[in-house]
Amino acid sequence: MNPDKARAALDAKTKPPGSLGFLEDLAVQLAVLQDRLEPRLDHPHLITFAANHGVAEEGVSAYPRTVTAQMVANFHKGGAAINVLARQAGITHEVIDAGVEPGTRNFTREPAMSPTECATALQLGRETVERAIGRGADAIGIGEMGIGNTTSAAALLAGWLNLDPVSITGTGTGIAEAALERKREVVATALRRHAEARRDPALWLAAVGGFEIAAMTGAILEASRHRTPLVVDGYVATAAAVMAFAMAPESRESCFFAHQSAENGHRLVLERLGVRPIFNLDLRLGEGTGAALAMPVLQSAAAILREMATFASAEISPRTT
Amino acid sequence: MNPDKARAALDAKTKPPGSLGFLEDLAVQLAVLQDRLEPRLDHPHLITFAANHGVAEEGVSAYPRTVTAQMVANFHKGGAAINVLARQAGITHEVIDAGVEPGTRNFTREPAMSPTECATALQLGRETVERAIGRGADAIGIGEMGIGNTTSAAALLAGWLNLDPVSITGTGTGIAEAALERKREVVATALRRHAEARRDPALWLAAVGGFEIAAMTGAILEASRHRTPLVVDGYVATAAAVMAFAMAPESRESCFFAHQSAENGHRLVLERLGVRPIFNLDLRLGEGTGAALAMPVLQSAAAILREMATFASAEISPRTT
Repeated sequence: MNPDKARAALDAKTKPPGSLGFLEDLAVQLAVLQDRLEPRLDHPHLITFAANHGVAEEGVSAYPRTVTAQMVANFHKGGAAINVLARQAGITHEVIDAGVEPGTRNFTREPAMSPTECATALQLGRETVERAIGRGADAIGIGEMGIGNTTSAAALLAGWLNLDPVSITGTGTGIAEAALERKREVVATALRRHAEARRDPALWLAAVGGFEIAAMTGAILEASRHRTPLVVDGYVATAAAVMAFAMAPESRESCFFAHQSAENGHRLVLERLGVRPIFNLDLRLGEGTGAALAMPVLQSAAAILREMATFASAEISPRTT
Repeated sequence: MNPDKARAALDAKTKPPGSLGFLEDLAVQLAVLQDRLEPRLDHPHLITFAANHGVAEEGVSAYPRTVTAQMVANFHKGGAAINVLARQAGITHEVIDAGVEPGTRNFTREPAMSPTECATALQLGRETVERAIGRGADAIGIGEMGIGNTTSAAALLAGWLNLDPVSITGTGTGIAEAALERKREVVATALRRHAEARRDPALWLAAVGGFEIAAMTGAILEASRHRTPLVVDGYVATAAAVMAFAMAPESRESCFFAHQSAENGHRLVLERLGVRPIFNLDLRLGEGTGAALAMPVLQSAAAILREMATFASAEISPRTT
């Protein structure tokens, strides 16, 4: 569908043209994506991909790597933030172990994944989304858990978008200034060591990415193939989106960016991508928490286009000016 | 409850401290307001107050005043944006005719309301909220419909907060530049003509306010009396909040600001109040649409505090740094 057709349908609704602001832009994107003037997101499904990172041994996180598996157990018991927020929003939730053990290798010394390992992780993400859609999901949210993964995301983003490691590397779960310095050095080291991999998105993803990040990249590619709306969570999920867009530019059309994270550099990346996040609540948790909070906004945008009366049907006077 | 107690409870949850950003601030405000560590917003209720404005005859709106009654009919039929958004979010919705006919008088010539008329409108807002709470509502959203009411709101805000009429007066439903000039002149005229009324909030509200704005002020005062969370919609509802805060400063504690509107001057007013809106979607419709979209975020904030596991209960490792 041509976006002008969706825009015209919105302008016939009983409200001043454009007065629902960004909600109208979201509605247009959904209509174009689903190729109908009655877009729907009735069965949203959120996937949290978890994995460990060899680079965590460089002291780049405030938490030990054992926390990744402990949080996966917490997800299964339903006590984590993402469980609470998904329940609250009526979103089904699934946790995928994309490589908690043994995790990736330390990319300051060698590629994080072999090309085969990376392809397997991409495929895992694809299959998870395909299975969810097969069970009736009509909207997907993605998020992650992995101690050390903001370091991996920073390296991916800095290398692929040619951004300065300092401006793109933040405090993640909350490290102190000295650890932040170390984290920036780690990112700079990775950029030098794997410079030759920056020519190809799959090679770059294997060099400095993570299993859960590659799985999210695969999830985006698969949602795009089905023209299913996909809500990208925060900083780390955005790194996965950047790699998906590099592999398949049309996957941009399916992606909605939940929020601008408090992580240093996320705003810069969103601006570089030319995308507007749905909100900014200074979240920096991951797991898919921002995606869960944003899903109702997308559902509301679709409902506006689908359900509102028109000026004609409601017999309301036209503008006088 | 002391906010530190709620903050400490959040810090024991399975997430890095503060990593849910502004959502945590909302949770703390809810806990303090409801005086419990398990805040709830299970039965949200949204009220749209409607009225006409004598000042509309000055040509300050893009729509004729007949639209107010036509939109009230549209609300009753369920076809307006607020109906769609309230349904989508599971919020019950009610429309209150606060004075569609005959509406207020033209405040460029005389006070919009007599003190008695204004007191009656305040009381209407109070009674509407009291009735809703009596029926089980545990969270209130407020919004409005009234052709000409951004002019009334601009006059209220400029006069009470000592703001320049130019910076505080915007295009409302979408008037052209010449009409905007006229609207600013109208606001400046009102400030001069009713200067003596600026000493008292009830007098000022009567002088340049509107029936639906006074009713919203009453609604805020009543929600505050019950310590019930109240979500303020956009620019016009914020003017009602400013007058409520002037009458009863403690009513601030019950108020949550849904969004920063696209209306010129709203950001300035929110900054002056020192409040942070939940999001910015460039909405400028009113009706309570922003409040409906924000309610799920508040419900989510409450759920985080109420339902998340603690590090101790989930047996998760502490920070290493």
